[in-house]
Amino acid sequence: MQKKPFITLEQAQEIKKTYPTPFYLYDEKGIRENAEKVKKAFAWNKGFREYFAVKATPNPFLINIMKEYGFGTDCSSMTELMLSEAVGLSGHDIMFSSNDTPPEDFKKAAGLGAIINFDDITQIPICEKVLGGKLPETMCCRFNPGGVFRMGNGIMGNPGDSKYGMTEEQLFEAFRILMSKGVRHFGLHAFLASNTVSNEYYPKLAGSLFELAVKLHRETGADIRFVNLSGGVGIPYTPEEEPNDIEVIGEGVRKVYEEILTPAGMGDVSIYTEMGRFMMGPYGCLVTTAINQKHTYKEYIGVDACAANLMRPAMYGAYHHITVLGKEDALHDHTYDVTGGLCENNDKFAIDRALPPIDMGDILVIHDTGAHGFSMGYNYNGRLWSAELLLHTDGSVQLIRRAETPRDYFATFDCFDILKDMKYDD
Amino acid sequence: MQKKPFITLEQAQEIKKTYPTPFYLYDEKGIRENAEKVKKAFAWNKGFREYFAVKATPNPFLINIMKEYGFGTDCSSMTELMLSEAVGLSGHDIMFSSNDTPPEDFKKAAGLGAIINFDDITQIPICEKVLGGKLPETMCCRFNPGGVFRMGNGIMGNPGDSKYGMTEEQLFEAFRILMSKGVRHFGLHAFLASNTVSNEYYPKLAGSLFELAVKLHRETGADIRFVNLSGGVGIPYTPEEEPNDIEVIGEGVRKVYEEILTPAGMGDVSIYTEMGRFMMGPYGCLVTTAINQKHTYKEYIGVDACAANLMRPAMYGAYHHITVLGKEDALHDHTYDVTGGLCENNDKFAIDRALPPIDMGDILVIHDTGAHGFSMGYNYNGRLWSAELLLHTDGSVQLIRRAETPRDYFATFDCFDILKDMKYDD
Repeated sequence: MQKKPFITLEQAQEIKKTYPTPFYLYDEKGIRENAEKVKKAFAWNKGFREYFAVKATPNPFLINIMKEYGFGTDCSSMTELMLSEAVGLSGHDIMFSSNDTPPEDFKKAAGLGAIINFDDITQIPICEKVLGGKLPETMCCRFNPGGVFRMGNGIMGNPGDSKYGMTEEQLFEAFRILMSKGVRHFGLHAFLASNTVSNEYYPKLAGSLFELAVKLHRETGADIRFVNLSGGVGIPYTPEEEPNDIEVIGEGVRKVYEEILTPAGMGDVSIYTEMGRFMMGPYGCLVTTAINQKHTYKEYIGVDACAANLMRPAMYGAYHHITVLGKEDALHDHTYDVTGGLCENNDKFAIDRALPPIDMGDILVIHDTGAHGFSMGYNYNGRLWSAELLLHTDGSVQLIRRAETPRDYFATFDCFDILKDMKYDD
Repeated sequence: MQKKPFITLEQAQEIKKTYPTPFYLYDEKGIRENAEKVKKAFAWNKGFREYFAVKATPNPFLINIMKEYGFGTDCSSMTELMLSEAVGLSGHDIMFSSNDTPPEDFKKAAGLGAIINFDDITQIPICEKVLGGKLPETMCCRFNPGGVFRMGNGIMGNPGDSKYGMTEEQLFEAFRILMSKGVRHFGLHAFLASNTVSNEYYPKLAGSLFELAVKLHRETGADIRFVNLSGGVGIPYTPEEEPNDIEVIGEGVRKVYEEILTPAGMGDVSIYTEMGRFMMGPYGCLVTTAINQKHTYKEYIGVDACAANLMRPAMYGAYHHITVLGKEDALHDHTYDVTGGLCENNDKFAIDRALPPIDMGDILVIHDTGAHGFSMGYNYNGRLWSAELLLHTDGSVQLIRRAETPRDYFATFDCFDILKDMKYDD
């Protein structure tokens, strides 16, 4: 089975004339159509808001597209907060969900008026102190139910082994402490499984959070304004998987909402989501050129991208589908390892992958790299990061991040004389 | 069992006044003593040279220390070549060992007069073309014996599954082709296992390379000037492991040299090594402060460093020993996960680790991060890289890389207006 790239060979060749490979390319049309669907799927909930997970794809041009749909940002660090601020987001446009949080990050988040999501009960005094004793009016707490998270017959996640969130007991205590300190409005947040390809995950998570919200409201009297389902709605990386249907997911959440929250008199609770992968993953690809071939104990195709550009295969053994442009319909009768050039044997985009015969100069599309792709790049072996490009709905292409240069790579030596003899090309 | 840090609590507290944690600290004394030992261990070989693997720790101040011992650099990319050039290395001071190599990297390497190590036979015409048809006088080829690499009773590596090097047949062919193209002097290179903690690895590898060198010389008439044993000499990350004894290793190589090369009339062959981890690993540590604690389904200590600063535990599940400064002799009766703040559950420096009770503000030393530590950092979650510091032999401390700032992080947007409203602190 194949996945269809959102560019043709002819488009890629045209783009390559201006922007050498490797580069990340994002598909504005796909991003917008999906964003519309997300809005529609949750339109039944008056306060619904998606907070785009900046960590997935920290590019201001893409965040601006999210903004057009009324979406906010989910931030986890100082620079993500700064980025949100710089594109004009503030107040409840921003959720700040962090763990092991440096105190100054709380200060920045509160300064922007962001909704702070406490990962742990011990963060309360730290945050209070850094804010000079005055907590914001609206705050959120993150729940971790412990144990394993099952869905159907399978174990989907292992919250009991994860560092995030509070136990139920701590959650109740946190709500009481926060109320005693003048916090007036509350949110509840949980993340139990990553990249679920199942329409059941959000409804199941929502069901348990809604029940907990009712209990919290009844027992503490807290005014619960929103339930944040966080991320976890995944995408199919392999061509065999069936993609999530966000409309079915939205309806599933609605059903449990109407079963649990509405009868409890909590029919005004807003649903928040913090999707990153689902919003951007399928609408980005890494475009790279075959520059080497090697026939030793296996068949290797070397490309001009490497794990410095996309780390998921190296770090997680993750599958990313590959299309050789112009050979979409050719017989996939060759078995290749597709490698980058790092001195790291895990720098392989594909292992034992059936592909059409690849010639030097062929352009390869590595699919589904729109989220947690560029943002997880490193500079190992002194390799540089690529440019990011946006393919507009009208077919034009815009540079939305320039490629890194050696000067950027050596920037943290700019206060010394030691590299004064460095010969830059620029 | 414990490992002894090369700084005390008092030193760390003093350094922290000027340079906030987290920071990398390198121990000049340890680096120099080890470098001396390496030189001495191979002093029997007239042409011996260590080529420090820049990828391990790409810091010009540390490379300058290596230079004082007559060591060169092992480079794998354009920026590593540029760095070597900037600190005054050229010609045979530089080995260029790369795979899936971009043609322009060959050009740069040749321009510097570096020794180019061909990873594959298919690289020959690519390199020849980019160099205008004229190959350098001295060249090297990388060998991959295939299969598995056994030592004693264990499998140490899996060369047959690795992307590096040529088969024996290709190696002979490559030598013949290169000779026909006017290459006059040759080197032979192989890397079969990473981070071996055994005095047997180099001698065993040397034995097979020496035999191959004799065979190559006899059958092709090639003038073999050096055998490059590459890296692979490891360090003990756990306190239980016995460190390699470089003197024993050097003697082991000498023994096979005298058994194989000398009798073959090849007693003038130089031994090259490309150690990175062994040269720097134990002499660097990541110093971080405990800033959060969490008691949920496990006990967590959150520190101000994260996988953005040190990725080995997240990527490889690697063990790094941790010392809580000032509590070296305290009972290690607590079991903690030591975590960074990334939104990634693999961001843990230690899992279920026995440590003394940790208080907020305690300073932790994460050991053996002098190689493949800083250099493997990423910016996920928008996290920034730390400073690097050098603890001089006289006890003084020098900044040898400044910490990254948000301005660095956003540098690849500097050609756009989109972040013009960014509020930097500087």
